[in-house]
Amino acid sequence: MSESSQSTDVATILQNVLGCKWTLHILAEVRDGVNRPGELVRSAEGLTTKVLNERLVKLVRFGILQKTSYPEVPPRVEYELTQFGKRFSRLLDEIDRLQKEC
Amino acid sequence: MSESSQSTDVATILQNVLGCKWTLHILAEVRDGVNRPGELVRSAEGLTTKVLNERLVKLVRFGILQKTSYPEVPPRVEYELTQFGKRFSRLLDEIDRLQKEC
Repeated sequence: MSESSQSTDVATILQNVLGCKWTLHILAEVRDGVNRPGELVRSAEGLTTKVLNERLVKLVRFGILQKTSYPEVPPRVEYELTQFGKRFSRLLDEIDRLQKEC
Repeated sequence: MSESSQSTDVATILQNVLGCKWTLHILAEVRDGVNRPGELVRSAEGLTTKVLNERLVKLVRFGILQKTSYPEVPPRVEYELTQFGKRFSRLLDEIDRLQKEC
């Protein structure tokens, strides 16, 4: 069961993501394969479960991440980049590259 | 005599530029060769000289545009993309492309 949709415009998403260090951090972690909430919340000092969940909900709403819930006990939830999310991440890489060359 | 410097961070510049329709418009016009203030102010309904000048000052401060003043009577001023400005514009193209493909 996975939920993802991409309706917001890319420029708005970019402004939002660029303006939030936790969103950028979570995106980088999921991109590196750290894709469970438990692992994610332990991936950085100061990242709380509340903030993590808010950012994950936002990244799914933006269509960047896809959430998959596995009907297990205890329930298992994983996040991964959507196709759009992969393209969006490459855009962030471009911004990093441009930043380094300035 | 030309003035341009690039000290602000790319993500901050991008957030600023993406959030302002006049900045995007002026950048597109200069990119297309419309590079004098007189021509620029006539390039769009509703664009005032005051707003144009504010945006041009900002784009020079960001290091995206370079201003050249020619010691003539009447004085001639022209704007053009810097190297960074050209790279930055290609980033905007990437965002447009991603937007169109969504």
